[in-house]
Amino acid sequence: MKILIDNASVVINNDGIYSIKTKSIVIEDKYIKEVEDTVSDDEFDLVIDGRNKLVIPGLVNAHNHSYMTLFRNSADDLPFDKWLFEKIIPQEDQLSGDNVYWGSMLGIMEMIYTGTTCFADMYMFVNETSRAVEESGIRANLSRGLVDIDGGGDRRLDEALSEIKDYEKRDNERIKFSLAPHAPYTCSKDYLEKVISKAHQLNLGINTHLSETRKEVNDIQDQFKVTPTGYLNQLGLFDQRTLAAHCVYLTEEDMDILYQKKVNVASNPTSNLKLGNGVAPVKYLVNKGINVCLGTDGAASNNTLNIFKEMQMISLIHKGVHEDAELITAQEALYFATSAGAKALGFKRLGEVKAGYLADLSIIDLDKPQYYPRNNLIAALVYSTTGEEVETVIVDGKVLMHKKIFKTIDVERVKYEVTKINNRLKRGI
Amino acid sequence: MKILIDNASVVINNDGIYSIKTKSIVIEDKYIKEVEDTVSDDEFDLVIDGRNKLVIPGLVNAHNHSYMTLFRNSADDLPFDKWLFEKIIPQEDQLSGDNVYWGSMLGIMEMIYTGTTCFADMYMFVNETSRAVEESGIRANLSRGLVDIDGGGDRRLDEALSEIKDYEKRDNERIKFSLAPHAPYTCSKDYLEKVISKAHQLNLGINTHLSETRKEVNDIQDQFKVTPTGYLNQLGLFDQRTLAAHCVYLTEEDMDILYQKKVNVASNPTSNLKLGNGVAPVKYLVNKGINVCLGTDGAASNNTLNIFKEMQMISLIHKGVHEDAELITAQEALYFATSAGAKALGFKRLGEVKAGYLADLSIIDLDKPQYYPRNNLIAALVYSTTGEEVETVIVDGKVLMHKKIFKTIDVERVKYEVTKINNRLKRGI
Repeated sequence: MKILIDNASVVINNDGIYSIKTKSIVIEDKYIKEVEDTVSDDEFDLVIDGRNKLVIPGLVNAHNHSYMTLFRNSADDLPFDKWLFEKIIPQEDQLSGDNVYWGSMLGIMEMIYTGTTCFADMYMFVNETSRAVEESGIRANLSRGLVDIDGGGDRRLDEALSEIKDYEKRDNERIKFSLAPHAPYTCSKDYLEKVISKAHQLNLGINTHLSETRKEVNDIQDQFKVTPTGYLNQLGLFDQRTLAAHCVYLTEEDMDILYQKKVNVASNPTSNLKLGNGVAPVKYLVNKGINVCLGTDGAASNNTLNIFKEMQMISLIHKGVHEDAELITAQEALYFATSAGAKALGFKRLGEVKAGYLADLSIIDLDKPQYYPRNNLIAALVYSTTGEEVETVIVDGKVLMHKKIFKTIDVERVKYEVTKINNRLKRGI
Repeated sequence: MKILIDNASVVINNDGIYSIKTKSIVIEDKYIKEVEDTVSDDEFDLVIDGRNKLVIPGLVNAHNHSYMTLFRNSADDLPFDKWLFEKIIPQEDQLSGDNVYWGSMLGIMEMIYTGTTCFADMYMFVNETSRAVEESGIRANLSRGLVDIDGGGDRRLDEALSEIKDYEKRDNERIKFSLAPHAPYTCSKDYLEKVISKAHQLNLGINTHLSETRKEVNDIQDQFKVTPTGYLNQLGLFDQRTLAAHCVYLTEEDMDILYQKKVNVASNPTSNLKLGNGVAPVKYLVNKGINVCLGTDGAASNNTLNIFKEMQMISLIHKGVHEDAELITAQEALYFATSAGAKALGFKRLGEVKAGYLADLSIIDLDKPQYYPRNNLIAALVYSTTGEEVETVIVDGKVLMHKKIFKTIDVERVKYEVTKINNRLKRGI
């Protein structure tokens, strides 16, 4: 497949500064072949007129539980414990693997719809989210959530390892796997040690929740006389490439550990605000040199999977809370949502519109009131874009959505299936 | 004109609680005639199929400077003083009345596009924003900004009064006028007294900025030994119906004054965050019983005029900053953006989809990934809606946008004109 995006405005990264240039882009197979003023090839399978369009690197959603779209708008304006134990867990208990497949597919559909081309996911049933990723054509770093406080820890780890082993044969570079010890408060110390040892042995990355709530920090501190970050560090968890979600409550020493251990932090501003958990110290993480990326968290606490919203939120919230309008600029937010995310999820040559990079990109229709008049388009991307303006999405050189029509997902089927599951959940069976 | 919206999901206000009912709506001339399970009339000029659509009250943007769309994305990530004095004022100095007309028209276009049907505006040139309001068909409470620190205060007041007098003859109930002493720090005490006396004499409402920045509070305190709120109260400003924008820094005593004087507070969460000004004490204002409504502020500091974003922001930011997920619910945010705004702008029988109310409403297309599966649609409105889902807007019984096609605005002309103005501004002439 050979694609030309002709004469478009393109987000270009020049030594860490994003700017907009008018370019034509050639995509061949999985890679971006050229980003030039005029291209040398002249035979294409698909030509996309780039006039009044903006081509951006595909966005990376670095923390998600995509199947949780099934619970969207079902538990709002509730405190964390009530939300989790009275609303979410009782619904989760009723899910089948097939339900998780359809919930994940809806999540993927929504991510593509809003320009996300790659995501990290932590889920409950193996072989379901991965099936949805494989079929839809999106890119992902996947991990079965590992919990043992209620028993069943070994079974879950076995499932995770078996799924990873299955996929080794498929030679699909779009899908990576990590091990996901859920959180310091849902895994025993023995279990964490077992999972960490497996990760070392198989050289797998780790995806975990860390310091999301004050309660977590207090509980771990009471039990182990150390912060959650210090605790995981003592266990050697950070010796593998780690993606740690949330990190709302950190000490100076915690941040030093995260920096030294090159831990990637997925900040989830909307979810942290919505559940009343607070505001992560992103300003300090960035100053330390820690790789910060962006996630939505699940749609049960967000209530969308829209990374444009997170870019805007992380910038606005930090400016406001620290009373400093220069903090977390549009440039930084865009980096969090692209290159930083790609790095955190372990994908190389991803996150820029650049020759030789993986052909993961989104095309925005600029013919909307919110883009007039035309000033700084990087600012427009972060502060004026809702996500609905995305009209074409390409992943791994393949068109997943064009002019808002999905090419790999049966949209009506997804809507039908999730509605059926939701009706059953509402009846409580 | 007689319109039927057939068999739609409708946001109904029952004793202060919003819920969703399937209803058909008849609009006749300027009013909603029926909201019923089955309607009695059967002859209509326009029938809108309401299946998989959500009818909501038109949103009210209670603080705006619509002409400032001209500066959108031109001055971002800058501290307040640099933003205002180095970027915005030099551009404003170059504007003509005709420029303000086109900037306002773009602003109105964007507001209609995202479901806003009524707004409050403070502007620089008379007879321009009002012309755009009249032609576009939107509803507004308008006011020429009154400043005298640089001289010219009397001229501005005369212009404002002359515009108001002109409009008295036109018998257009869609447009109201207020007097707009800009802020305690841009008007001398004598000038404020003159404006307040005129407002009393002509029984006009007042639109003003109040306690937006720490600097304002400190400066007024230094000069007059009283808070900005106490100062305006001493001058009798609050004796007329007042719409006070921002109110970020208030003492307990200030809030008592605002409550006793029935001052309406237009909170602008995005603008306050973006300019690094902070977070307004909305939790305390609401607890006092003060009427809180929502504004975008101008597109130079937002960078959109999208009230869906403000609903989401005011809810999320207060939950997060106060670490209380039950604070500012979806129900409250929707009230701020509809009935509270209508009240603040002085419009009666506005802000609900209800028989006998003014026919100002927006219709949302629910056939989008972010609305599946279908749970609480009030939560969906606030937490899952971007604003782009609005496809039809009716004001005063007249269709302004249908299936995303504007009926009263020449969209291509607006884009052409604002681009031309912007090119001139960029060249600095």
